[in-house]
Amino acid sequence: MKKGSVFTYSKRYTIFERSTLALLCQPKLSCFLHFFLFGVAQDSETPELRSCFLCLSYILQAMEHPGTQYAQKGKLPMDPAPRKPRILLAACGCVAAFKFAKICEIFCDWAEVKAVATPASLRFFNTASLPKNVYLYTDEHERLFWRKVGDKMLHIELCRWADLMVIAPLSANTLAKIAGGMCDNLLTCIVRAWDYNKPMLIALDVHTFMWRNPFTEKHLMSVDELGVNFIPGSDTMAEPSEIHSSVIGVLQSRPLPLN
Amino acid sequence: MKKGSVFTYSKRYTIFERSTLALLCQPKLSCFLHFFLFGVAQDSETPELRSCFLCLSYILQAMEHPGTQYAQKGKLPMDPAPRKPRILLAACGCVAAFKFAKICEIFCDWAEVKAVATPASLRFFNTASLPKNVYLYTDEHERLFWRKVGDKMLHIELCRWADLMVIAPLSANTLAKIAGGMCDNLLTCIVRAWDYNKPMLIALDVHTFMWRNPFTEKHLMSVDELGVNFIPGSDTMAEPSEIHSSVIGVLQSRPLPLN
Amino acid sequence: MKKGSVFTYSKRYTIFERSTLALLCQPKLSCFLHFFLFGVAQDSETPELRSCFLCLSYILQAMEHPGTQYAQKGKLPMDPAPRKPRILLAACGCVAAFKFAKICEIFCDWAEVKAVATPASLRFFNTASLPKNVYLYTDEHERLFWRKVGDKMLHIELCRWADLMVIAPLSANTLAKIAGGMCDNLLTCIVRAWDYNKPMLIALDVHTFMWRNPFTEKHLMSVDELGVNFIPGSDTMAEPSEIHSSVIGVLQSRPLPLN
Repeated sequence: MKKGSVFTYSKRYTIFERSTLALLCQPKLSCFLHFFLFGVAQDSETPELRSCFLCLSYILQAMEHPGTQYAQKGKLPMDPAPRKPRILLAACGCVAAFKFAKICEIFCDWAEVKAVATPASLRFFNTASLPKNVYLYTDEHERLFWRKVGDKMLHIELCRWADLMVIAPLSANTLAKIAGGMCDNLLTCIVRAWDYNKPMLIALDVHTFMWRNPFTEKHLMSVDELGVNFIPGSDTMAEPSEIHSSVIGVLQSRPLPLN
Repeated sequence: MKKGSVFTYSKRYTIFERSTLALLCQPKLSCFLHFFLFGVAQDSETPELRSCFLCLSYILQAMEHPGTQYAQKGKLPMDPAPRKPRILLAACGCVAAFKFAKICEIFCDWAEVKAVATPASLRFFNTASLPKNVYLYTDEHERLFWRKVGDKMLHIELCRWADLMVIAPLSANTLAKIAGGMCDNLLTCIVRAWDYNKPMLIALDVHTFMWRNPFTEKHLMSVDELGVNFIPGSDTMAEPSEIHSSVIGVLQSRPLPLN
Repeated sequence: MKKGSVFTYSKRYTIFERSTLALLCQPKLSCFLHFFLFGVAQDSETPELRSCFLCLSYILQAMEHPGTQYAQKGKLPMDPAPRKPRILLAACGCVAAFKFAKICEIFCDWAEVKAVATPASLRFFNTASLPKNVYLYTDEHERLFWRKVGDKMLHIELCRWADLMVIAPLSANTLAKIAGGMCDNLLTCIVRAWDYNKPMLIALDVHTFMWRNPFTEKHLMSVDELGVNFIPGSDTMAEPSEIHSSVIGVLQSRPLPLN
């Protein structure tokens, strides 16, 4: 875990009494509850139940890093309400983009979600199929966002906003662009400006013919050096549930600073 | 020659009696006839004669790898007719694209030909000038080909179809894209999905100013590593006849599996 | 200084008597005058004065390489008038492009200026704001310039024309393209065809978020290997005056062959 993020968790737990906090944070109990809840969440049949248990599991996991700052200062922070993790989901132009709405849905259960789509992706999925509370940004928005000197750039603001980014599906072409540091659309500008202290995950969707080409490994190694997490899939893109599990896994090892 | 391709030739020669085959395939005779016919083809003054002798030479060359499978099984295959080699010709946006129709014509003499053109190439040649039996694919076709999940992708189907690919003319920009593993149009998607067990040849068309730039050598070395054959030209793109000879040369050392 | 360029200066100085030339070219005097005039130019408050002194300084600097050829031949060349340096200025799509008109203005004081703009840059500055005597070339011009086989290519002609090129602002994306040898628009075609015996300078304009990304350094090192001079700026693009000083600095160490 990155130095500093322990403290930033403190604000979330002011809703607990200090004594409760101390109890829950005993390592063994916390660890047991965490795995118990995560297991229950995975087995839940309705999205609501899964979401509920995942949230509990998530809160508990964060508790393993108790609010040191809070305990030291001995007073309530100004803004005691914890916020949801902010997840930026992005889609490229490949066949698996038809699963993008499903991916958005899964994360909406417990996170704030914004979506980004490349121009090429728009013929591979119906933008109307995305969950109502997920706003979709395209290159058109980037153009409209900046009007005159002094205006902000959309890709920079989305970089600031997001705690974590997932590109699923990622196309072979966008992978090549990322591996080459290109930034010619909203998605690749976000990637080029990304702070790799925050997690970025990718789920590649390429045909077997492209997969076996030497560039696939070469480019995956390049983005690995940047600090990007690759979500392997069997044959094609990993399933939305696998993508979700990978994100949960990453968040367990690198909790987000949700202040 | 790649393992396995010896056997796949077998179907072509079922039109010969077994005894004839045995006779013709005596190494010394076959070799003599091959060089004789190839020489005659090169000296032929009309395209028809050249085409005719090249075909004979080509058949004979394949015969040096007699139908082992057929000889072993001792019975006729289901489809005894040999097929023509399938050659995919591609053009990029550079001045020499005005010779693309000529290149298509030469190969039509003895092969099935399909053509691919980048968007940038379309202002450098008249698509109506291509031989009538050569179908030209552009990015527009790629878009129309895939309509819904389950549909095939044109670049994958063209990869499957082709025995050999020739990019002539290849522009400096497409060379850079190939050397970087980019795939943002039909041509580069085919290249990214290409099986390099099948030959790919390139004839570069760049101005002297671009040629002397260090990127030319760098990129040519990168694609050489992939297994691409570079057809050198004097000053600009190699002449259609030189491109044709290079292809023949490659096919002589790496006969196609024409089953 | 490159071998050969000493001689090409010769035509400029036929307006001086041979004896005056000999006097002015005494190393110490020339050196003193040069620094004196350059200092005066830097301190000048009006653009006209600055321009005037810079020109004098420039002429003097060239004189340190007297017209050897002329002296040897002992007769006047046909075209005794020296010409102005030809500077090609280029802008990419980034916020600092609003300073492009200012950059053009500064160089117009003492040089012939042509401008090039990428498609992405056109929404970041008003093309009507450029000085009247600066012609702006875009991809549209490249398309219109070449009509049929035999026509010249605009990017090649601009390469021939220019003595020196400055890309200011340079975007992260165009930097990546240059570092990868791509050439998909007029600007990057010029760069790909550039003769690096002639100076090229770049002033990068990227947001802090992009700057800290490892690709920035990687790409700057790549273009440095090509022979490109990087003009550093504090936080964002260097100021027009800093860009101007950098160009003057480069010209002092690598005088142009203005024949």
